[in-house]
Amino acid sequence: MVINSIEDLRVLARRRLPRALFDYIDRGSYDELTWRRNRDDLRAIALRQRVMVDVSRLDTSTTVLGDRWAFPLAIAPTGLTGLFHREGEILAARAAQAAGIPFCLSTMSICPLEDVRAAFDGILWFQLYVMRDRGFNEALIVRAQAARCRALVVTLDLPLQALRRRDPKNGLAVPPRLTWASAGQFLLRPGWVWSVLRSRHRTFGNLAAFFPSKGTAALSEWMGSQLGSLTPRDLAWVRERWPGKLILKGILDGDDARLAVSTGADAVIVSNHGGRQLDGATSTIAALPRVLDAVQGRCEVLMDGGISSGQDILKALALGARGCLTGKAFLYGLASRGEAGVALALDIMRREFEISMALTGSGRAADVGPANLVPTTAAATRAAAPGR
Amino acid sequence: MVINSIEDLRVLARRRLPRALFDYIDRGSYDELTWRRNRDDLRAIALRQRVMVDVSRLDTSTTVLGDRWAFPLAIAPTGLTGLFHREGEILAARAAQAAGIPFCLSTMSICPLEDVRAAFDGILWFQLYVMRDRGFNEALIVRAQAARCRALVVTLDLPLQALRRRDPKNGLAVPPRLTWASAGQFLLRPGWVWSVLRSRHRTFGNLAAFFPSKGTAALSEWMGSQLGSLTPRDLAWVRERWPGKLILKGILDGDDARLAVSTGADAVIVSNHGGRQLDGATSTIAALPRVLDAVQGRCEVLMDGGISSGQDILKALALGARGCLTGKAFLYGLASRGEAGVALALDIMRREFEISMALTGSGRAADVGPANLVPTTAAATRAAAPGR
Amino acid sequence: MVINSIEDLRVLARRRLPRALFDYIDRGSYDELTWRRNRDDLRAIALRQRVMVDVSRLDTSTTVLGDRWAFPLAIAPTGLTGLFHREGEILAARAAQAAGIPFCLSTMSICPLEDVRAAFDGILWFQLYVMRDRGFNEALIVRAQAARCRALVVTLDLPLQALRRRDPKNGLAVPPRLTWASAGQFLLRPGWVWSVLRSRHRTFGNLAAFFPSKGTAALSEWMGSQLGSLTPRDLAWVRERWPGKLILKGILDGDDARLAVSTGADAVIVSNHGGRQLDGATSTIAALPRVLDAVQGRCEVLMDGGISSGQDILKALALGARGCLTGKAFLYGLASRGEAGVALALDIMRREFEISMALTGSGRAADVGPANLVPTTAAATRAAAPGR
Amino acid sequence: MVINSIEDLRVLARRRLPRALFDYIDRGSYDELTWRRNRDDLRAIALRQRVMVDVSRLDTSTTVLGDRWAFPLAIAPTGLTGLFHREGEILAARAAQAAGIPFCLSTMSICPLEDVRAAFDGILWFQLYVMRDRGFNEALIVRAQAARCRALVVTLDLPLQALRRRDPKNGLAVPPRLTWASAGQFLLRPGWVWSVLRSRHRTFGNLAAFFPSKGTAALSEWMGSQLGSLTPRDLAWVRERWPGKLILKGILDGDDARLAVSTGADAVIVSNHGGRQLDGATSTIAALPRVLDAVQGRCEVLMDGGISSGQDILKALALGARGCLTGKAFLYGLASRGEAGVALALDIMRREFEISMALTGSGRAADVGPANLVPTTAAATRAAAPGR
Repeated sequence: MVINSIEDLRVLARRRLPRALFDYIDRGSYDELTWRRNRDDLRAIALRQRVMVDVSRLDTSTTVLGDRWAFPLAIAPTGLTGLFHREGEILAARAAQAAGIPFCLSTMSICPLEDVRAAFDGILWFQLYVMRDRGFNEALIVRAQAARCRALVVTLDLPLQALRRRDPKNGLAVPPRLTWASAGQFLLRPGWVWSVLRSRHRTFGNLAAFFPSKGTAALSEWMGSQLGSLTPRDLAWVRERWPGKLILKGILDGDDARLAVSTGADAVIVSNHGGRQLDGATSTIAALPRVLDAVQGRCEVLMDGGISSGQDILKALALGARGCLTGKAFLYGLASRGEAGVALALDIMRREFEISMALTGSGRAADVGPANLVPTTAAATRAAAPGR
Repeated sequence: MVINSIEDLRVLARRRLPRALFDYIDRGSYDELTWRRNRDDLRAIALRQRVMVDVSRLDTSTTVLGDRWAFPLAIAPTGLTGLFHREGEILAARAAQAAGIPFCLSTMSICPLEDVRAAFDGILWFQLYVMRDRGFNEALIVRAQAARCRALVVTLDLPLQALRRRDPKNGLAVPPRLTWASAGQFLLRPGWVWSVLRSRHRTFGNLAAFFPSKGTAALSEWMGSQLGSLTPRDLAWVRERWPGKLILKGILDGDDARLAVSTGADAVIVSNHGGRQLDGATSTIAALPRVLDAVQGRCEVLMDGGISSGQDILKALALGARGCLTGKAFLYGLASRGEAGVALALDIMRREFEISMALTGSGRAADVGPANLVPTTAAATRAAAPGR
Repeated sequence: MVINSIEDLRVLARRRLPRALFDYIDRGSYDELTWRRNRDDLRAIALRQRVMVDVSRLDTSTTVLGDRWAFPLAIAPTGLTGLFHREGEILAARAAQAAGIPFCLSTMSICPLEDVRAAFDGILWFQLYVMRDRGFNEALIVRAQAARCRALVVTLDLPLQALRRRDPKNGLAVPPRLTWASAGQFLLRPGWVWSVLRSRHRTFGNLAAFFPSKGTAALSEWMGSQLGSLTPRDLAWVRERWPGKLILKGILDGDDARLAVSTGADAVIVSNHGGRQLDGATSTIAALPRVLDAVQGRCEVLMDGGISSGQDILKALALGARGCLTGKAFLYGLASRGEAGVALALDIMRREFEISMALTGSGRAADVGPANLVPTTAAATRAAAPGR
Repeated sequence: MVINSIEDLRVLARRRLPRALFDYIDRGSYDELTWRRNRDDLRAIALRQRVMVDVSRLDTSTTVLGDRWAFPLAIAPTGLTGLFHREGEILAARAAQAAGIPFCLSTMSICPLEDVRAAFDGILWFQLYVMRDRGFNEALIVRAQAARCRALVVTLDLPLQALRRRDPKNGLAVPPRLTWASAGQFLLRPGWVWSVLRSRHRTFGNLAAFFPSKGTAALSEWMGSQLGSLTPRDLAWVRERWPGKLILKGILDGDDARLAVSTGADAVIVSNHGGRQLDGATSTIAALPRVLDAVQGRCEVLMDGGISSGQDILKALALGARGCLTGKAFLYGLASRGEAGVALALDIMRREFEISMALTGSGRAADVGPANLVPTTAAATRAAAPGR
């Protein structure tokens, strides 16, 4: 079977995963308006075809926060990843390293940070949900340092958990072995069951270390009570304790971008949580120019949301992003084929990015910019973007 | 079964109601162009995601016409409500009170005003169709006062009854027991039949009191002869007789909004009758900025039409409405599960509103405004709105 | 069965007519881009809802070319009409008279002009295809005078016959009794066969009188050779010979509108032949403002194309048309139910027009104008129209 | 069976060709965004209907690069053409000559240049992929001169081969006899197999002569290594060696158009390789005004991409193109009916073009221009185009 698009991997993932888990990866919150905009707005952008430019040597690499990436993509932090495939975070990290790009581990990962770090040598980022319990935060920051994480990614857009409407319908509970309502979904996916049973890790690895004696129900309740809004003061608290690169994730607004800079962020990630939080928010690609205007180069700007091809990466760079992160795309790969699937997802996007560089006359990824959009599109996109 | 959207309730209502009644709730007039615009235009609006704002305390309440609402939604006046579920208006009123929001009773209700008043203690509004027969109007105004209604809502956009094309096809007649043509629809819905048979109220309660001796055919004929256009003089006549808050419903135009102010209205409801009257009218959300421009704060501005999520409520407030009314959404709840269904519909929208407040960085519903739209959207929406 | 929309009549017509004839009525030329635009552009227009206006007396009538119409609609000239129902033109003329509106007979009618005139007393127009054979034109002009036609309608947009792609596939030939390829279509429609067999008229009545001895093949060949472009000189030739009102049909452009005025036309019909000639032309409603700008009131301006509801009529009037013509809508009525079907089609549109008048606060059809559009729409429509 | 549109021929081609070959003709690269834009943007353009213009004599012919074309269309260079029908290139060339238009042979043709030249007398162009191996290029240039080619068409937009995702899934390999994976596709199309088996030519005719002793695998590998970007220096090298007309194909940008002029090109073809290379590029019709602005008449401007009707040709001319090329349309004809099919495809488009000329009041194809667009459309299209 020939797989040559992220959509192909998505179809495979749907076949292999219990429905509850597939839908968890695949969908957005509420009416999915923002989830749809992320993709539609990327698709509507016009790249500028160039010919008669020497592109015999294509350099897809770029530098982000001082690190060299083989191409301008990183693996986004995603929760539950170890449930989609045995040792999911470890496999994805290895594939990222092989592809020469960073891997970002989520607070809500299944495999604990230390196991991931032990399993690969690449660029590791750690994503932190800052909880009300300062001791929890402090412990994770210390562990992230110990694990030589190159950056701490603080997620800002989850003061409350929004609803993906299918999750409760699918009986999604974490960990899934506690769910009776949707047992059928799991029985029909023996490949998945077998894979997860063989796993050392079956619950939230980073949290488990913090709550050695508590059961899942207590954990879930604790988390609900711990989420909350993060103020600049909270971020200052983090900034003091984290000596490395600090990245703020969930910026979709100019004012927030300015706040992020003043908080001492080294980079921001333009993000609407993949269309999974505020339904009605703009697409990330529409927000990108506003964020760039606001930061005026005082920090680096990455983006995620709807990136599902190498062309999308090029579009984001042309509009000013330094790099992109992908969540869904690598998860489809992981869920369908494990490490090889992640490698395949990354390779598909890298090749698409490379040929799009060639056809836009871009020799070096680091040079991609407004000149790669059809003239006036940069301006028009800024003008048009607020309309949605 | 998990129900977590208004659409879920709609699907349940379709299963439980005879088709004639479901279509009556669900659809718009003629080609349904305006009915569709109401919803589409709301969906197209972009909310401004904010982070790093302290939203640990969310106050969804607001004040409308001097009353405190638990969140910025009221139950719109809808005809025939008592037919969708036994004692429908009473159940909906109780659910509204429990949710801390007003209930507006229609002239064309099944349960009479006095019974509704007797059954709950919350904020009650009464909607009046001003008829040619002044005695009828006077009697209802007196009754509304006696029932301690906090506001009288005069509907302006029904000088003639427009056509929902499915109604005659479905053999819709009022009350339905007179309809032979579509008996099958009713036989297939024994739950509904049983529920309605148990009801004390089976015909228009407010009118029945006025026409104790007349049959249904005479009533229908009388109503056709009584509808007509309302001029400012008619409204002055009402204003003189009604000492409480006066709300004019059916304003979609700046000039009408100015007339409403000069008539002494305390509030207007921007409305196109849910897309059920003038097919070709703009959506209410597109008309809202024009109405606000016209009234310049001289009266309060509410809106209905297409509101089907808490996000929609936030969008209306961001564009300047003080509150919204919902018709279809609560009727789906009522038809499917009675009082619990209305409560569920209200709770779904309240929770959606609350999380959207958090994710737009809005601590207090009363402060939601243009700053919650993506910069320039307020202006762009005004400019773009007339185009449709 | 309840019929309350033009679409209902369309569905009935499809059931009763042989497919070749239904498609002939129903479709546009080539890719049907213009055919679709006619309808879509009408639908996109926003009417201005008004309340608090006294519309207790609605006057739907208007004056066009000195004649009083009961409402602003006329029956457009359509070819082959007598084949869709026995004595089709006569029945449609009678229904038009009963509805108080004009009937326009086509050169390509089945019933001859004199028979139509003998059968009804209403306003009769005659549509002329000016042929290369001046004697033919002269004879028809003389007959139109003799038949007391109130206006001569000269069609300009048929220098060549465009292709409706389904016609040859359906084996459409005229008259249909000569067609073997699609006999099945006719056998399956016995109602239609019976109706037409009973007709006195089975071929082009106006032409037959001119070619008493020739067969159909010769006629068809002759017509192909006779069509051609009409220059102002040709129209001057007509103008000299026709003392009554002269209407030029097929104007979609400002320059053509100015030429029409200088030719002495009393009125123009903004038309793209119902989307049946130039595929790619703008919709008629988009062209209307340009034509009005050009004629500056020096002649009356009517329009056809896509009118399928009373709302559409109001929209055309609001944008400046004095009246509309309908082709497809009355043909669906005629094909499905004969004279009663035409009457029904006209009544549906009249009632829709009337209620739309009421809901836009328009007391008199003759006063409908830009004030019935949402403010700035008139300007915006002119600006936007050229874009398509 | 009546065939009167390019779509009809497409349906026939799908029936007759093995799926791998049909998809190869039919589809675009990656997500097919550009492939879709080519057609959608053409469809959105509005032609200006004119009447009262004397179009009794329609001259569809035009002059391109000094040659007279019977109408403004040429056959685009397409690879593998001889596989779609026995002696495909020869048949298509004959049909082009019969229609009075040029035929352009691809480097990647099946029938070799000399055989095509020997088989017809019409205007022959040769398309050259400039390879890294200068000897190869030189040999083909010499052969093109010997074959009295009127123009050399150098394709610029293939520095790398983009992916049509269906090709690998269909097991597309060249030549197809080497493909086992998709044998079923071929067995189900005996008409095609028989036709190709009877052909003298079964592999790339122009390359075979250059690689007499090598097998297909070697050839394929060699080609991969030979493609690359073409710089102005490479084009200067070609310009020196080719004394005839030089056409550069694949220009979609103003800067590239200026470079093309300075390289000495006699004409450019605005092209995005039929939506088969850079997915995300603008449509060719949107790019056309920018290219025209850039060249300022210093060379002729042709375009291809999405042309599927005579109306499309007229639109391209109205926006400033001197002529169009068609790939897919003639291939559908060739695949379905051989030479007669190509003739039919050309005739359909020619007749559509002719009637559209008549209905836009255009007596001579050579005079078609901005005056054939609805006023301000020319300007609006330029303004709007960059938006995509």
